[in-house]
Amino acid sequence: MENGRCIVLLSGGIDSATALWWAKGKFEEVYALTFLYGQRHSVELEYAKKLAEMAGVREHILVDLTFLKRVGGSALTDEKMEVPEGPYPPEGTISTYVPLRNSVFGVVAGAYMEVYGITDLVIGVHASDVPNYPDTRPEWASALEALLNAGSSLAFDRKLRIRVHTPLVGLKKPDIIRLGLKLGVPYEWTWSCYSPVDGKPCGKCPTCVQRAEAFAEVGIPDPLLVRLEKEEKKEV
Amino acid sequence: MENGRCIVLLSGGIDSATALWWAKGKFEEVYALTFLYGQRHSVELEYAKKLAEMAGVREHILVDLTFLKRVGGSALTDEKMEVPEGPYPPEGTISTYVPLRNSVFGVVAGAYMEVYGITDLVIGVHASDVPNYPDTRPEWASALEALLNAGSSLAFDRKLRIRVHTPLVGLKKPDIIRLGLKLGVPYEWTWSCYSPVDGKPCGKCPTCVQRAEAFAEVGIPDPLLVRLEKEEKKEV
Repeated sequence: MENGRCIVLLSGGIDSATALWWAKGKFEEVYALTFLYGQRHSVELEYAKKLAEMAGVREHILVDLTFLKRVGGSALTDEKMEVPEGPYPPEGTISTYVPLRNSVFGVVAGAYMEVYGITDLVIGVHASDVPNYPDTRPEWASALEALLNAGSSLAFDRKLRIRVHTPLVGLKKPDIIRLGLKLGVPYEWTWSCYSPVDGKPCGKCPTCVQRAEAFAEVGIPDPLLVRLEKEEKKEV
Repeated sequence: MENGRCIVLLSGGIDSATALWWAKGKFEEVYALTFLYGQRHSVELEYAKKLAEMAGVREHILVDLTFLKRVGGSALTDEKMEVPEGPYPPEGTISTYVPLRNSVFGVVAGAYMEVYGITDLVIGVHASDVPNYPDTRPEWASALEALLNAGSSLAFDRKLRIRVHTPLVGLKKPDIIRLGLKLGVPYEWTWSCYSPVDGKPCGKCPTCVQRAEAFAEVGIPDPLLVRLEKEEKKEV
């Protein structure tokens, strides 16, 4: 029963969208899980909904984790902190890191996996984030997998093995996009920016800078910007 | 700075109260963390507050995780499911297990630890729960510790080692109570019952049965029942 189904963590960004399209090709039934956690860029939720619909997921589960806003400690959830500008620093946790966020996401996914009887979880962590986000490293994904197996009744009673898949783990942003273009990911419906201005990317925050550099390296204009520009022209 | 401080997961029951008093003797500053997760027996929160006050914790943090109620899959959070009666079964996950609950609690604690700069977490998991709750086993606690170290900037940037302490891990309920009596735990302010009736324990659910058996083995009447009886007499 468990074979052929998976849950994908879907934020609405490039990486999770690519992971979702990868999962579509690997599993018969795909569920998407998206979290509201008081993030500044909650516009990404609309993108996640659109992507889930376009991917034809079996169910798109939205979970409210806004308690993470109260925990604080991040520029992504605390409006008194400023989102940094410019590229990602070469190493060290950045202020847009949300304490234990991905670990919380992973175990909440584990709870849904247990209730749905699903043993496979897909997460779009990748090499470009590793220097700045501890919870995107391969050892983090392995540790999450070990905890899910240790703490779930799927493993305890039913002797099933829970697996955490990280199809992008060795890839940097341009290679993720190259993979996604082959898979048919509609990047015009992915959102990255941490500090949206009137529904448009700011172009200055680290994730905007990284996104722009990646599309430049791939050699195509960012499909999101192309779409937004087209829509703007239509409105005028 | 991190030395001498810890966070204790405090439900308001016998085990976490004992863990709290153990922590009081080991750490200079103790923080307590209590979760509201849509549990039927939310009366335990009042007991947790009372215990935190009596223990003189530095801060008692209450966190709303009622999204776990929506996840469902447990008699503790789903009112359509019945809480079982009688003793715990000899093995196998019981319907009062909440999917991934303790793992969620552990990583949320990790988020607070990071924001507070605290490296030590104390959890009152114990041997009596092991046959029925996968997320109370020693291997679960080790896996949680590994995930916290893999996913936290305390370990990543500051090279600190996060430790999960399980002082009751080898103990069964009567031995926990014996330890707690030595430590001065006010068991009259601990709550166990899953199905409270008019603010009183039902006496029938597995945790009531286990509690009664434990106090009988220790050879003292349950201080909670003694107190409730005394108060009832006063009211009449």
